Amino acid sequence: MRKDERAWNEMRHIQIEPHYLKHPEGSVLITVGDTKVICSASIEERVPPFLRNQGKGWIAAEYAMLPRATQQRTIRESSKGKVTGRTMEIQRLIGRALRAVVDLEVLGERTVWIDCDVIQADGGTRTASITGAYVAMVLAFGKLLEQGKLKKMPATDYLSAISVGMNKERDVLLDLDYEEDSTAAVDMNIIMTGSGEFVELQGTGEESPFSYRELERLVALGNDGTRQLMAYQQEIIGNLMKEDNLS
Amino acid sequence: MRKDERAWNEMRHIQIEPHYLKHPEGSVLITVGDTKVICSASIEERVPPFLRNQGKGWIAAEYAMLPRATQQRTIRESSKGKVTGRTMEIQRLIGRALRAVVDLEVLGERTVWIDCDVIQADGGTRTASITGAYVAMVLAFGKLLEQGKLKKMPATDYLSAISVGMNKERDVLLDLDYEEDSTAAVDMNIIMTGSGEFVELQGTGEESPFSYRELERLVALGNDGTRQLMAYQQEIIGNLMKEDNLS
Amino acid sequence: MRKDERAWNEMRHIQIEPHYLKHPEGSVLITVGDTKVICSASIEERVPPFLRNQGKGWIAAEYAMLPRATQQRTIRESSKGKVTGRTMEIQRLIGRALRAVVDLEVLGERTVWIDCDVIQADGGTRTASITGAYVAMVLAFGKLLEQGKLKKMPATDYLSAISVGMNKERDVLLDLDYEEDSTAAVDMNIIMTGSGEFVELQGTGEESPFSYRELERLVALGNDGTRQLMAYQQEIIGNLMKEDNLS
Amino acid sequence: MRKDERAWNEMRHIQIEPHYLKHPEGSVLITVGDTKVICSASIEERVPPFLRNQGKGWIAAEYAMLPRATQQRTIRESSKGKVTGRTMEIQRLIGRALRAVVDLEVLGERTVWIDCDVIQADGGTRTASITGAYVAMVLAFGKLLEQGKLKKMPATDYLSAISVGMNKERDVLLDLDYEEDSTAAVDMNIIMTGSGEFVELQGTGEESPFSYRELERLVALGNDGTRQLMAYQQEIIGNLMKEDNLS
Amino acid sequence: MRKDERAWNEMRHIQIEPHYLKHPEGSVLITVGDTKVICSASIEERVPPFLRNQGKGWIAAEYAMLPRATQQRTIRESSKGKVTGRTMEIQRLIGRALRAVVDLEVLGERTVWIDCDVIQADGGTRTASITGAYVAMVLAFGKLLEQGKLKKMPATDYLSAISVGMNKERDVLLDLDYEEDSTAAVDMNIIMTGSGEFVELQGTGEESPFSYRELERLVALGNDGTRQLMAYQQEIIGNLMKEDNLS
Amino acid sequence: MRKDERAWNEMRHIQIEPHYLKHPEGSVLITVGDTKVICSASIEERVPPFLRNQGKGWIAAEYAMLPRATQQRTIRESSKGKVTGRTMEIQRLIGRALRAVVDLEVLGERTVWIDCDVIQADGGTRTASITGAYVAMVLAFGKLLEQGKLKKMPATDYLSAISVGMNKERDVLLDLDYEEDSTAAVDMNIIMTGSGEFVELQGTGEESPFSYRELERLVALGNDGTRQLMAYQQEIIGNLMKEDNLS
Repeated sequence: MRKDERAWNEMRHIQIEPHYLKHPEGSVLITVGDTKVICSASIEERVPPFLRNQGKGWIAAEYAMLPRATQQRTIRESSKGKVTGRTMEIQRLIGRALRAVVDLEVLGERTVWIDCDVIQADGGTRTASITGAYVAMVLAFGKLLEQGKLKKMPATDYLSAISVGMNKERDVLLDLDYEEDSTAAVDMNIIMTGSGEFVELQGTGEESPFSYRELERLVALGNDGTRQLMAYQQEIIGNLMKEDNLS
Repeated sequence: MRKDERAWNEMRHIQIEPHYLKHPEGSVLITVGDTKVICSASIEERVPPFLRNQGKGWIAAEYAMLPRATQQRTIRESSKGKVTGRTMEIQRLIGRALRAVVDLEVLGERTVWIDCDVIQADGGTRTASITGAYVAMVLAFGKLLEQGKLKKMPATDYLSAISVGMNKERDVLLDLDYEEDSTAAVDMNIIMTGSGEFVELQGTGEESPFSYRELERLVALGNDGTRQLMAYQQEIIGNLMKEDNLS
Repeated sequence: MRKDERAWNEMRHIQIEPHYLKHPEGSVLITVGDTKVICSASIEERVPPFLRNQGKGWIAAEYAMLPRATQQRTIRESSKGKVTGRTMEIQRLIGRALRAVVDLEVLGERTVWIDCDVIQADGGTRTASITGAYVAMVLAFGKLLEQGKLKKMPATDYLSAISVGMNKERDVLLDLDYEEDSTAAVDMNIIMTGSGEFVELQGTGEESPFSYRELERLVALGNDGTRQLMAYQQEIIGNLMKEDNLS
Repeated sequence: MRKDERAWNEMRHIQIEPHYLKHPEGSVLITVGDTKVICSASIEERVPPFLRNQGKGWIAAEYAMLPRATQQRTIRESSKGKVTGRTMEIQRLIGRALRAVVDLEVLGERTVWIDCDVIQADGGTRTASITGAYVAMVLAFGKLLEQGKLKKMPATDYLSAISVGMNKERDVLLDLDYEEDSTAAVDMNIIMTGSGEFVELQGTGEESPFSYRELERLVALGNDGTRQLMAYQQEIIGNLMKEDNLS
Repeated sequence: MRKDERAWNEMRHIQIEPHYLKHPEGSVLITVGDTKVICSASIEERVPPFLRNQGKGWIAAEYAMLPRATQQRTIRESSKGKVTGRTMEIQRLIGRALRAVVDLEVLGERTVWIDCDVIQADGGTRTASITGAYVAMVLAFGKLLEQGKLKKMPATDYLSAISVGMNKERDVLLDLDYEEDSTAAVDMNIIMTGSGEFVELQGTGEESPFSYRELERLVALGNDGTRQLMAYQQEIIGNLMKEDNLS
Repeated sequence: MRKDERAWNEMRHIQIEPHYLKHPEGSVLITVGDTKVICSASIEERVPPFLRNQGKGWIAAEYAMLPRATQQRTIRESSKGKVTGRTMEIQRLIGRALRAVVDLEVLGERTVWIDCDVIQADGGTRTASITGAYVAMVLAFGKLLEQGKLKKMPATDYLSAISVGMNKERDVLLDLDYEEDSTAAVDMNIIMTGSGEFVELQGTGEESPFSYRELERLVALGNDGTRQLMAYQQEIIGNLMKEDNLS
């Protein structure tokens, strides 16, 4: 039994509040246990230089934490004048994951800027960011469809992400909170599509390597978790992702 | 009549949600019309080098906006690698204002880090930040009192801030929203204490200079506004600021 | 009596040396007591991107101190790789103040770069910078008029700035030197036009808040000070600002 | 058949030249096809602040490419003044992987600085860096053992890394060169120990998600590749890693 | 005949105004034709980390130009956030040259900070900086001697610097102004001691290489120029550099 | 006799390996004793803004050292986020020297990017960089001639560089290694053309000034050294520099 009485294969309480902000084309507040992330999707009607005049769009992501999202206050990256390696790694991951389920030609020559700002952190901020950002992005696409700027939904499938891991006793666990994560032997982030395929799989055994058999168990558990998340995403944006909208 | 049907001397709806975050010693979400700011107060048990071994504390403030707090997405300051002049000006103002109502010797050799993060912007973000940060700070002091780390409340008086201004027709207005602010002839920020004195007064007539008579009217209106804000602050933290706690 | 035998309402000796430098379109060395600032105005025949093709000009200001302008050597901002908040605040203030008395349409699509470099500092460097920069700017306008590049003087009024304040005994003082400033209870910078209106008013009571009655006395004293400065400016550039040149 | 006549499960020619540089405690030049990386391991007799006085060491890695290691010259990161996200991601990965096979308590309070500098790039630079850096690190440990500064070999197992992937036709391929990598549908880096366990597994299907069955085939192929690499590492450093040295 | 009627071996008018600033331990304004540089020497009672506890001092130099010291305004290095290569080269040169004529053990564990700020530039700013900085430094040493903080003058000899060059017609010229410098075929900076030896010699023939015979003529002319400068320096600081003060 | 048994006027063993890298238009590995530098020349078909539409090309150089090229590991400049003054000085020197022997009009509107990366340092890295970079550049020109992009060889003469110096005993020495260089009284870098003229001469006597007689001896020795280097360069690129190719 875990300290918050969850079973090993049980996720924390999750909530996605759509249209959380007034200005962005799409936005949500996603809450996973005590982790809270504001995700927004902003449309810019041009693409980065390397993509110009190719009839394709782009999705770029930025990620940050409020200084006091964490137990100890962290120094603001704008004050330091540079972004940490961890932040860079996460924002590259978010962008890559979302691009995997978007038809960039259907999107056309525009950029979707994804901003994930962690208001409160308790483990799983990168996976919550991806799960929430996906919804914010589809809401933004919905707005463009409504305005007639898009003819078809550019999102080609659902997308969600979850963390799995193993503690020192080598129990497999779903959706680690901060305490579990910081003492884990193995840590893995799994990003999957609605059709059950992998978009990204990142497992690390810094504390202790893991076997092929353990890999199989972690992947199976991640598969269960992402399915639950996608069922919930469907409640919120199912109408936008209806069959006839999908490419 | 203003576009949102407010009278010239009427403030927008204000709400302060205390204990908004889990980790900081003090925190609030302050909402003024469509402007929303998360203010947190974090205690660090040491002071900057210039204050060491003087038996006095310090209050430092940082301010930022989420990229999509605004109508157009603004570039993240951490990505640019530097903080804008506007941000610097505001965070220096917040720190200076709060220090004016804190007895730094009662605080002792510790630093209060104030973080004001604008989630949604619609004018008046710096005055909302000050009004909210004051409450977050007093909540943090309350926690230190409770833990026995402080013997006495270091806050010596209430503090709140409001914007006043004049439109092109030279009507005096209280609490300008973004649209009013961006078309104003004169713009003034007024920060006052519970005893009705000025902590800071910043008036600028970039679009058009203003007369002594106009200054008098602006100041009087600001005085009314800050009094209303302090009445509301008192509802939330009045017990902490009770007579016998005050220095 | 003040330490340099000045009366409470007496300014320090002031001198403005026009055409101090060879290269800029306009320049002065302004000396206020022991404070010395080189102010130059450079004309660039284009405007920043946000103003292009609007038929209007711009005034941008930069401010810096030589490392040993101060009692203790300060680290050069170019070595640190960033500009301090204080510097940013001052250069934004200088630009804003000058723009308030210039008709940017008369100026046309060009930028006036104002550089204020403090050679020696003894309090009041920001107000001396504004008072001197105004003269340098009008000299530059004079040169453009002479060259036929301008049809009319873009400056619409005189402009000068002075500091006022209150010491711990709550005596009101005009034109504070460094020692007075660093021990002041209240500190205020006042920027006024030739017609006696306020362009900017910044009062701060970090050490101790101030009352409405005190505000009145500070403002009156600042009004006197700026009038004296403008009389002196008139001796130097009065011919350029003659009635028929003014818009 | 691949363009260089390799079979799908065939690695490129690999060569590790030990003691390549004069100054570092350990160094190699690793060549994998046309990819060449200089890896060096430098010993510093202290640890980062967060580890002080814990009796444990640290391994930190940095990675860079010469500007003309690539087909198009890339801008030098020192000229840009910041390190790209890709570089950060890779150097964090190298450090994490090496730490997984080092007993940091046996290492004691010292830091091993790993520098991987890509002289020529043709795909697989991060995996070549890890495979080469591991050898450089063990050579450095060998020197410390020889000097009596270490009593026991801190490396607890072999470590090597290889890339696997799938082309558009969904053929599984071992050890992708640049051209194969830049057109791959799925790309995976696998880092394994001598005992056949995973230290890190990073698979990404940005171009197209991949199924569980495909994951199995990729992992099996990566397992074969890392075994071959470790057989070669053993030829070079087998004597240092002999049974009685291992913890 | 040169455009300002100087002979080929004639220097521009030179003037050194000692004690130009109020705060620094030593300072001058040096004027060479239209080139004007403020040089100050500040004493800091500690040395950089690499020199600690060795009983020796250090001399560090910084160099900058006001933005409008030049015909075209140059961007302020503090705004750009980095110092140009030219600036770095010059400040390293100034420091190296001054250290060559100072006995750092006599100086003791203190740093002399030299600041050379070019107020107006018309060629030869680096040589004027060295010639002026030397005087400012000796004035600062004089102050330390007077205060009893030094027992002996640390400067061991006079030091001055001059530029020489060749125009396209291969005429040798002394003390080039900006126009001569920017069209020169060969450009050389020569720094010499009172005893007629070279401290630094930097000749560059970017536009056209130069022969050994030409080198001889340039060096002879530089020798003449530096002698004249040292005669003038002697008028100002001769009493401080008297025989019995010299080491 | 020197520690490595060289005579005072004897160079270290030198080797230049042409076509060292696969991607650049021209490249070499130059080895001088234990100093090793990879020099590459990359052609970019455009020029910097200040040269556009003038029918002339440009040569830009960058220089860096691997962190462990030196006895003690040095911090990577990309990690520090800025380039040191020493690096800037060297890369400016390399660019200036190469431009002195190239007809930029024959080159046409293209930039040659020179990258000198020191793999292992043992004194003389800047002179080895110039000697090697010259060969890499001519190889790149050879490729452009071969491709018909150039009609004529833009290099107008050979170019090489060597260090000379004097030890504490005032013996003149050719080609100083690191140990000799770090204890030298006088240090001089000499860059000469095939026709025996000076492109750059930089002598510094930071430890002790040098006389005119000493200057003569240093220059004569440098002349001998550069002649030997150019004889070797001729073996490698003599065919490209044949009479009928030269302008």
